[in-house]
Parts: sequence; C-alpha cells; structure tokens
Amino acid sequence: MRIIGIAVNKDKKLSPALYEKIMEKASEYGFLLKNRYAVSGECGIVELAEIDEKAGKLDLVFVLGGDGTILCATRYFAPRGIPVLGINLGQLGYLSELDPQEIDFGLQKIQAGEFIIEDRTMLEAVVLREQREVAVFHGLNDGVLTKGAFARIINFSVFVDEQYITEYAADGVIVATPTGSTAYSLSAGGAILDPEVKAFIITPICPHTLAARSLVVADDKEIKILVKTALESSMLTVDGQQGFGIRKGDEILIRKAPYRAKFVKLKNRSFYQLLREKMREANRYHD
Amino acid sequence: MRIIGIAVNKDKKLSPALYEKIMEKASEYGFLLKNRYAVSGECGIVELAEIDEKAGKLDLVFVLGGDGTILCATRYFAPRGIPVLGINLGQLGYLSELDPQEIDFGLQKIQAGEFIIEDRTMLEAVVLREQREVAVFHGLNDGVLTKGAFARIINFSVFVDEQYITEYAADGVIVATPTGSTAYSLSAGGAILDPEVKAFIITPICPHTLAARSLVVADDKEIKILVKTALESSMLTVDGQQGFGIRKGDEILIRKAPYRAKFVKLKNRSFYQLLREKMREANRYHD
Amino acid sequence: MRIIGIAVNKDKKLSPALYEKIMEKASEYGFLLKNRYAVSGECGIVELAEIDEKAGKLDLVFVLGGDGTILCATRYFAPRGIPVLGINLGQLGYLSELDPQEIDFGLQKIQAGEFIIEDRTMLEAVVLREQREVAVFHGLNDGVLTKGAFARIINFSVFVDEQYITEYAADGVIVATPTGSTAYSLSAGGAILDPEVKAFIITPICPHTLAARSLVVADDKEIKILVKTALESSMLTVDGQQGFGIRKGDEILIRKAPYRAKFVKLKNRSFYQLLREKMREANRYHD
Amino acid sequence: MRIIGIAVNKDKKLSPALYEKIMEKASEYGFLLKNRYAVSGECGIVELAEIDEKAGKLDLVFVLGGDGTILCATRYFAPRGIPVLGINLGQLGYLSELDPQEIDFGLQKIQAGEFIIEDRTMLEAVVLREQREVAVFHGLNDGVLTKGAFARIINFSVFVDEQYITEYAADGVIVATPTGSTAYSLSAGGAILDPEVKAFIITPICPHTLAARSLVVADDKEIKILVKTALESSMLTVDGQQGFGIRKGDEILIRKAPYRAKFVKLKNRSFYQLLREKMREANRYHD
Repeated sequence: MRIIGIAVNKDKKLSPALYEKIMEKASEYGFLLKNRYAVSGECGIVELAEIDEKAGKLDLVFVLGGDGTILCATRYFAPRGIPVLGINLGQLGYLSELDPQEIDFGLQKIQAGEFIIEDRTMLEAVVLREQREVAVFHGLNDGVLTKGAFARIINFSVFVDEQYITEYAADGVIVATPTGSTAYSLSAGGAILDPEVKAFIITPICPHTLAARSLVVADDKEIKILVKTALESSMLTVDGQQGFGIRKGDEILIRKAPYRAKFVKLKNRSFYQLLREKMREANRYHD
Repeated sequence: MRIIGIAVNKDKKLSPALYEKIMEKASEYGFLLKNRYAVSGECGIVELAEIDEKAGKLDLVFVLGGDGTILCATRYFAPRGIPVLGINLGQLGYLSELDPQEIDFGLQKIQAGEFIIEDRTMLEAVVLREQREVAVFHGLNDGVLTKGAFARIINFSVFVDEQYITEYAADGVIVATPTGSTAYSLSAGGAILDPEVKAFIITPICPHTLAARSLVVADDKEIKILVKTALESSMLTVDGQQGFGIRKGDEILIRKAPYRAKFVKLKNRSFYQLLREKMREANRYHD
Repeated sequence: MRIIGIAVNKDKKLSPALYEKIMEKASEYGFLLKNRYAVSGECGIVELAEIDEKAGKLDLVFVLGGDGTILCATRYFAPRGIPVLGINLGQLGYLSELDPQEIDFGLQKIQAGEFIIEDRTMLEAVVLREQREVAVFHGLNDGVLTKGAFARIINFSVFVDEQYITEYAADGVIVATPTGSTAYSLSAGGAILDPEVKAFIITPICPHTLAARSLVVADDKEIKILVKTALESSMLTVDGQQGFGIRKGDEILIRKAPYRAKFVKLKNRSFYQLLREKMREANRYHD
Repeated sequence: MRIIGIAVNKDKKLSPALYEKIMEKASEYGFLLKNRYAVSGECGIVELAEIDEKAGKLDLVFVLGGDGTILCATRYFAPRGIPVLGINLGQLGYLSELDPQEIDFGLQKIQAGEFIIEDRTMLEAVVLREQREVAVFHGLNDGVLTKGAFARIINFSVFVDEQYITEYAADGVIVATPTGSTAYSLSAGGAILDPEVKAFIITPICPHTLAARSLVVADDKEIKILVKTALESSMLTVDGQQGFGIRKGDEILIRKAPYRAKFVKLKNRSFYQLLREKMREANRYHD
C-alpha cells in the first residue's frame, strides 16, 4: 500500500496539528498522500473537496471522525473497493481502529504489511412507488421505516423473497446488517449478529402485536416492506443519515449490496472485545 | 340519572338510524336527551356543536365511537365531573361498555340503577420553558416525549419529586397511568398496572442504555423530564391526540390531574376479562 | 436507642478484630450490647446462638454480612418490630447501610438521633394442599414458583382476590415486593417498583405465551397461583432461601405480611442513588 | 420411495384403527411396510421394538405422535439418513406434516413423487470433565444449561471458537438451532431464525446482567460454555428430553452435528405459514 487518501468530518474541529502530523508521518514512512475528502456527518453527504480523477487508485483512506463520519465515508469508498481506516476523534468509536496518538504505530504496521482487510456486508434499500424506483440508498448499518413524532402507528406487511411473513402495526421496523445489529436494532430489542453470520435481522419498533419478535433471515434473500397506511411524516432512513419520505402503498426493498465495505484492521481485537467495551460504555445506568 | 348527553365522532359515519334509535329508546325509558357534542378523533380536539351552558348538569354522556373518541370526550367531561358511557362503533373498544345493539339493555340498567361508576386516574402534563408554563394538557392514558422520523435520539434526564433518577439516550419516553399501561406503554415493553394501583409507569422508548427498565412510581409524586438535547421535530403528545413541539432545555412535568375520569359500568366484566379479550385480539401474529 | 444486638453470618469468616471493634466502639458511645445471633446464609435459617428471652427489647440489630444475611435476619427481626442496620462484608450490598470502616460514624449518628427508620413491605406466602395450610413463609423480596432443572414447564393459573387473570405455561412465576423488584424479578424482565408504591409485581419466567407481561397489582390484594400440572421437582422459594416442594393442585397464596421490615438509614442516599450504583455494578458486560 | 417404517409414541394411546388404516392404505399404494419402532416421549429414549438390521434401507419413516415424539425419532433416524414424516396425534404440531385423516393424501403424494425433502441443522453437545468426554448428545432444537429449582444462579463463561465472549450470572443458557429458535429459546427472549440461516442463537435465561442479549453466531463455529459455579442440581438438557448433571468446571461444547435431519414435505406450506399458525396458537392470553 502506497497511496493514502484522507477524509475528515468537516463539521468537527480538526486540529491542524493532527493533520500536519499525519502528513509528516506518512511521508516519513514513504506514503503518498493523494486526496482530501470532506465528510459532512450532519447531512450524511460526502462532499469531495478536491476530487482527483484517479481516486480509484487509492490504496487506503484514513477517515478522521466518529462512527457517523465512518458510516458516511464507507458509503462512498466501499463501492470503489477502497478500504478505510477510522481514526477516532470522538468518544468510543465502534468502527474506528486507531486513536489520534496511534498514527505512528498505524503507518508502521501498514508499511510492514501487518494488517488484515475485514469485509462487512452492506445493504441496498430501494423505494418502489407505483412500480417505479423512486429512491435507492446504500448503508452499512440499517434501513429503518419510522413514523413521525406525532403519528402513533404505521401498518405494514413484511415479505421475504416474496413470501408473506406477517403484518405489523408498529412505530416502524429496522432491517439491520450484522454490523448494524449492535446499533439501533439492539435498542429496539434485536439480537446481536456475529459479523460472520450471513443474515439480516428484522425488528419491529414498539409493535402493537405483543407476540412480535425479531426475525433473522439469510442475506441472499430480499426483504420487502409494504406500507399499508402511513401518515405524511413517515420516513425511510438508511444508517440514520439518509432519509426519504414514505407514502401509503410504497414498497421498500432491502437486499445485500453488490459490494462489501472494507476495513483495515491493525490490532488483534476481536468483535467480542469491541462488543464488551461498547456494552460497558453504553449500558451504564447514568449518574 | 335523568339527563343524558350524546357525543359522537364527527369523522365517522354515524348511521342516522342508530341516532334515532337512541333518541327513541331514551325517551321511552323516560330520559331527557339534552346535548349533542361532536368529537373530532383525528385532531384530538373536542368541538362542541351546540354547547349548552347547563352542560354541567348532565348526569351522563353517551359517547359513540372508538377508544380515540372516548379518550377525547373524557378530557372534556372528566373535569366537569360527568360520567361517560362508551358505545363502541369500531373494532374491539377497550374503553367502551356497550355495542350499538345493546342500547336498550343499557338504558334499562341505568333506569334500574344497576350500574357502578368506575374512577380512573388522569394525568396533567405541563411544559416549562425558561421557568414559564407554555403548555398544559390532560390525558387518561399517557404523556409521551418522542423524536421526529429522521432524528435518532433524544437525551433527557428523569426526576421523581425533584430526585434525580437517571439520564437516557433514547427515542423518547412514556409516562402512563394504569389505564394507559395497556396502550402504547405496553408496546414499548412496560408492565401492566391494575387500575387500582396508585402509580405511574415510566418507560423509555428504544433506549441506548440496554440496562434501562420500566419504573413504577407512586402517583402522588411529580415526574420531571428535562430535555437535554432534542432536534426540532421532538414532541410531547398526550393520549396520542394532543401535541406540542419540544425544545432543548424544556421541562415536562407529569402529575396526577386534580380530577378523575368517571366511567359508567353496566356489566360485571373485570379489568382482567377485558385484558384477556384485548390480548387475544392484539397479540395475533397476523395472517 | 440504647440496646444493640449483633447478628453475624456464621458461614463467613468474621474477623475477631471487627467484632472487637464494634464491642469497643459501642461501649464507648454508651450502648449496651445485648445479644449475638448467628445467621446461616446458605440454608436460609436463622439459628440463634444465645437467644435471650428479652430479645424483644432490643432497640436495633447490627447485621454483619451480605444481602443474603440481611434478608435472613429481616425475617427474624421484622415480626418482632426490631430495626436492622446492615454492615456489608461482601461486594456491593443493596440492603446494607454501612461498610465496616464506618462503624464509628454509624454509632455516632445513632447516638445523636440522626437517622430514620425506613419501612419496607414484606410478603407472606402460604401453600394450601387439599384446603389445608401445609407451609407458611415470610419474605422481603419475593415468592417464586419454579420448575426443576430437567422439567421444561409448569402450567398454572393466576388469580387476584379470587378474580381469574390468566393461565400460563412457563418455567415459573415471581411475585415480588417493591424491594424484590430489583432482584430476581428484574432478571425475568419485570419493571422496577419505587419502594413507596403499594404493590406487588407478578412476572412469569420464560412464558410460552409470548404475549405475557408483568402485572402490577395493589398490595392489599391476595394473589393466588393454582398449580395445574407440575413435575415432582417444582418448588416454592421465598427470598431464594426458603424452599418447599409443590405438587399438582397446590395453591400458593401471596399477600402482604402483617408487619413491615424496618431498616435504620443513616445516610441521605435515595433509593435511586442505590439503584444507579447497583445497575452500574450489575449491568456490566463482563470482561 | 418404496419401503416405509412406522414409529409410534408408546405412551400415547394409538387407535388400532389408525394403525390398520395406515397398513391397508400403504399396501394399497404399493408400499412395503418394513419396521415398527416405539418411541417413548416421556423419557426421551427411542426403544426399538423390532429393530431390523436393514433399518438403513428404509426410504422413509412415518412418525405418529406430537412434536416430542418427532424430536425423539429424528435423533434416531437423522444419523441414518432416513427422512421422517410426522403424523400429528396431539395439538398443533410444529414438526408434523399430516393429520391422521390425511394419510391417504400423503401416500398418494409420495407415490407420485410430489414431495420435497427438507434438511434441518442438528446440533451435537459434548460435556468435557477434566479434559475427558463424559457425555455426548444430539438434538434438533437446543442444548440448555439450567439450574435446579432451588438454586438461583449459575456462573458461566461463553466462548465461540475459543474466543471469549462474556461471563454470565443467570438461571442458565440456551443454544438453539434455527428449528429450536421457535421453541424454548423464544420463551427466553430469543429472535426467530429462518431455517435457512446457517447459525446458532445463544440466549441467557434470566441473566443478572441486564445488558445481556441473544447472540447469533455462524454454525460452523463451536460454542463453549465453561461452568464456573454450579450447585448440584444443574443440568444440560438436549431437546428437553436428554439430561446430564453438570458440575463446576465442566465444559459444554455445542457444534453442528455431522448430519442433518430430513423431513418429507408434501404441502406447500412455508416456514412462515407454520410460524403464523403456531404464534396464533401459542400467544393467546388464555381465558
């Protein structure tokens, strides 16, 4: 690996010192810094500050920011086959690999070839309205159908590969990848999926049907959510960053994306080590 | 009991035949029909079509509609001390007492004095903004703080009689009366409160803190929700019918209302009979 | 308060130094140490080493041990109207008030009258077999019907004040006081009850009926569990310390005990402070 | 398919008429009835009444009984590669394919070759004590570590392919196949796994750690439960039918069995149709 891009969250204050340090260290280790991308965590859009036509030739992108920034960057780099390495600027990052003070260590490892590339399933969410595709999104975590603040309920049916599963009256529904199973899906009562399980997990949000449970389906199947009644403020959100207004009669299709996200892993931390750390952080009953 | 009012859901088609039947039967049993109220279930506002100044002298109001209509009517009649009797026009009504074909039976029972008045706790929800009351609502079921469709989280702290309980990052929180404990609160994972328990139940919605649980507190205490961060679309909704936009820094106070709802009960059905019926209806895994 | 008893867990090594310190300090503050009780946490039986007929005249008992020891001691002292003060010898005690090094502070507070007595509801569990009482237990936390290790299910009906609630097929059921609502009941999915709520919470354990939920009922009601089928190893356990084999046809009655437990509180810690501390401790996702 | 065996639950009254009918119909359709097996649902042991050495040559076995009988029979026939077809004698059978009155229809379909063979993952559970295998079981549904009626807790650690996951203090833990995910695992709060998902689901029973959640892991991994403390009555049970006493220090290994269960499917019913039916049946809040 020789050519490194840098993506930063333009909404967060990035100390010029940190940026300088990366530049300096990278050149010290013989890397060529090629591009700088600005990621907007707020609106979920990757804005390319100085996009180079040869971006496709990047070997790796350093993403500086929190998990939101990495989610956003992944949607841009994954379809281009470029691995990302998250450098965490916020609190406990679940998707990041390094803290800012570990940049030296990181470049050294990369130079020595002491890393692995971990693949993660991504999803594709399509909205069909009167048989026409009106929106397509990609995400690493989840596609979520959700009601507005005032409305209390959405009625929808769920199908798996055109097989009818059941109908729900609920606040919404979450379809999560294994990566997303530890995010919003977990808050709604879902199970945790090991990243190596080839499956999606479907979890209704506050279902009126008490008997409703999370359902885990193989990820080579297509999940269809048929929206039967929905007040005007219903939305599909993907990774909590991309939103699209949903109407009665819309069909939301969720399937595996044709590419996978690639993450550079330099440490020997297992998924379960990260999970324990995150749980410790997230499950505190706050003072 | 001699003087009966009638409240109807003006959004539902009420067969004139039914109305005529009530008029005829009521007069046959010697009752004086005094007022007619129109209730708008949709927007949650009671619009009084032909309000009589002497409304306070009504002995009883027949409410024709579903549970939404009865919730709405209760907020109007409870503070006036007037009992309501729900006549169910929709599917299984949880708050209604009679089906339309039982009107004859109902009037006969009332004339014979064979009924009881069942009291239910109501709640009062107040929004404080910069120390000033900016909104007050009353409800039979619940006060709910909830996020908009796109936003993923609200941060808030909960206090009981000014004692700090904990802080949540969640989709929202529900404070329910015993009556409301079988409604939205149940969908969010809350326990069922027997109507005779003098308590509220506080249940976070999709909390990020996995350890979060429902909390039952005595209903002579005041619950305070201090909203620490909230995107623009956050709302307080009361009984799912009254809404108010919530801002960062707002305090929501929920306490027992100074009056109770009064329901005319003609049948010997216990709360648990109704609960079993509702559960059977609500918990089906739909075809 | 002048006369103090001491109860120790005879299964735990109690340093003679600690005992000496209490003796010395107590006499220094002018207290008369009257009795010494040995509590067996393991088997749940209070064995009185040197019971004094005038035990009833004790003003207060220091209980040295963990929560199990305090539960056990409470069952002995509560019916005698004697307050207990737990001195914690293990990890985080939920029922204890002082750590061993705070004994000096504690005696000083008591001498100065700077304490309150906090009451807690206790329960009484009676087993009826062919209309005859075959067992009676008292407890501070809970009465639990539970199956043996091999059997998978018990069928039972639940009644509240002779009103039929529902029938369960489950691993068992927990009836907890507010104090017990933070113990086993919480693990089985129950809500937390503020100690001032006058109620019991009934929670089925692993119910086959998915729709089953915890039910909170006023504590002036009697809960009856009618055991319809049960394999030989089914048991009633009270506070996890007292057990009794249950047979098909047995009725378990659970009601408020005629007396309340009394705890000496020297600190200003609220129930919620303790809850937060316990949650932090208990909810860690262990390394 | 030409040679059919018959397995019956010897604890249930099997009408001779039904047996005669099967014999007669089978011969009418040109099938050769070869063996008769007796299954004891109670004790979970298949007793072969007249075992034929050539049992391996059977094309198919009719199993007459409920799901317990089919579970039991599956453990015998699956390793021999013989498909089973369940004929339901009890209430809603989840594993059975036909009702007794459908035998004619069934034989006709089989003769016409209008059926499919559905495979299901089975599990193998091994108990290691001081490095030695002391027990091996196979099952279609689940392996469950569970405490006795009186004991309140087991402490154990869970590993996946020797990677440490976490430690639990709980009533036990369930490791279920997709088939078992709709059985006991569901009662303990687990998610439902589509039969085509190649995974196990691990669900703690009444965990003291509130943050504990179900975990779904790929079924080519080995799950290890290391029992750290356990009172004498702790057990491993497989499919709720085979039991083995567990001691402190024991390791329970659960992995995919080297063979799969084979079920003859004659109808076009999907997994989800069955699920909806079962849910409807199982989730009723009983009268």
